[in-house]
Amino acid sequence: MTKRGRFITLEGGEGVGKSTNVGFVAGCLKAQGLEVVRTREPGGTERGEAIRALLLDPAPLESLHVDAELLLMFAARAQHLAEKILPALARGAWVVCDRFTDATFAYQGGGRGIPVARIAVLEAFVQQGLAPDLTLLLDMPEAAAKQRLESRLRDRSEQRDRFEQEHANFFQAVRSAYLARAEQAPERFAVIDAQYTLDNVQAQIRQALMARVAEWY
Amino acid sequence: MTKRGRFITLEGGEGVGKSTNVGFVAGCLKAQGLEVVRTREPGGTERGEAIRALLLDPAPLESLHVDAELLLMFAARAQHLAEKILPALARGAWVVCDRFTDATFAYQGGGRGIPVARIAVLEAFVQQGLAPDLTLLLDMPEAAAKQRLESRLRDRSEQRDRFEQEHANFFQAVRSAYLARAEQAPERFAVIDAQYTLDNVQAQIRQALMARVAEWY
Ligand SMILES: Nc1ncnc2c1ncn2[C@@H]1O[C@H](COP(=O)(O)OP(=O)(O)O)[C@@H](O)[C@H]1O
Ligand SMILES: Nc1ncnc2c1ncn2[C@@H]1O[C@H](COP(=O)(O)OP(=O)(O)O)[C@@H](O)[C@H]1O
Ligand SMILES: [Mg+2]
Ligand SMILES: [Mg+2]
Repeated sequence: MTKRGRFITLEGGEGVGKSTNVGFVAGCLKAQGLEVVRTREPGGTERGEAIRALLLDPAPLESLHVDAELLLMFAARAQHLAEKILPALARGAWVVCDRFTDATFAYQGGGRGIPVARIAVLEAFVQQGLAPDLTLLLDMPEAAAKQRLESRLRDRSEQRDRFEQEHANFFQAVRSAYLARAEQAPERFAVIDAQYTLDNVQAQIRQALMARVAEWY
Repeated sequence: MTKRGRFITLEGGEGVGKSTNVGFVAGCLKAQGLEVVRTREPGGTERGEAIRALLLDPAPLESLHVDAELLLMFAARAQHLAEKILPALARGAWVVCDRFTDATFAYQGGGRGIPVARIAVLEAFVQQGLAPDLTLLLDMPEAAAKQRLESRLRDRSEQRDRFEQEHANFFQAVRSAYLARAEQAPERFAVIDAQYTLDNVQAQIRQALMARVAEWY
């Protein structure tokens, strides 16, 4: 029987460098001869990306209710797990995912104030016990992350999505919620200090990753 | 304080006459001087209709996982409740809805085989105790309903949606699940024998409705 692959997630607020580093993580693992599947949330599948579009749509529809937002997140996640993540892990591939359920606890829980217990109901419903093996939490002060995000939007002439339009106290709440989760599960989390140069950040990521690979592989 | 309105749902398989009769129910109530809000599921709101479009899309995307389908249904429902149904009931309006959660138990439970207990988790999450005051279950043999549906599709040159493409044993399971739910909650359900002429069916509906209105009003 093939050995099950490992599930690695990148987490953190807007602009901390998740999307920049997901390829770096995948590259480190491939260099070890591992099969790697790179993906992201919300989305990750054709159906999931259609749900992502509903979730991120900045258009002035009547506002999306917090419970509806939460259920859409988990709908996309259920599809992503069934179609992509679980089959990959089962055939022995390692999965590297840009955001997962910790983001739901941080954004919908910390940011929007949905009680953690309500989110946990849906987590249990969808994941049925599955959790990431390693979560790289890219952490940095919210104001500096905002500057990075703004320069990215400027460089690529992108529009802010529904989350990127939120305000400073929302992002502070997101950051605190992430750090609280990391404290509750220190064996799963590696907290990366993301405020430094990309080289510095990637050195931290490589170290956290290689420690686990050595342990598991 | 305004007296809370009542919540009335129409249920049954494809082609039994729900959409045909939702206006009739609303008309009977308006004739009693009641404020009535007419709506439908999945959908009922702008965001909800966007989710409905994802759910009913017959396009050959990779197949939608049963859990994702279920979560999308409840996402649309959470939005519908928060934005339309609960505010209407609170101001004293009566709400008449073409399908609600019984349809989820019948289609996703009976039809797709999701355990009732898993659906009940999401029902409790979203509805927090709310249930219809009266459910009109339009019941008829599946083969005759199929003929009605086919003539409607022909008349209006409509394409079958993802559910309408299902097969006879799916619809038999849906019908059985509906009847089982009606048996479990006889005080809430009125089962209408929907195989007769529209006049006959509407006489049955009016009778079931007026018995409740007299009791509540
Ligand atoms: N360590 C770093 N130092 C400076 N800029 C960075 C660093 N990491 C990422 N960036 C830049 O910051 C912006 C946001 O990074 P991104 O990876 O899109 O963040 P996220 O996916 O976490 O929102 C991008 O323009 C990216 O090039
Ligand atoms: N009692 C009835 N007798 C004959 N045809 C009917 C009757 N009720 C509805 N129909 C027709 O059957 C078709 C399906 O009805 P519809 O209301 O769209 O069903 P549903 O909404 O339950 O799927 C429509 O063409 C409608 O005009
Ligand atoms: Mg990103
Ligand atoms: Mg209809």
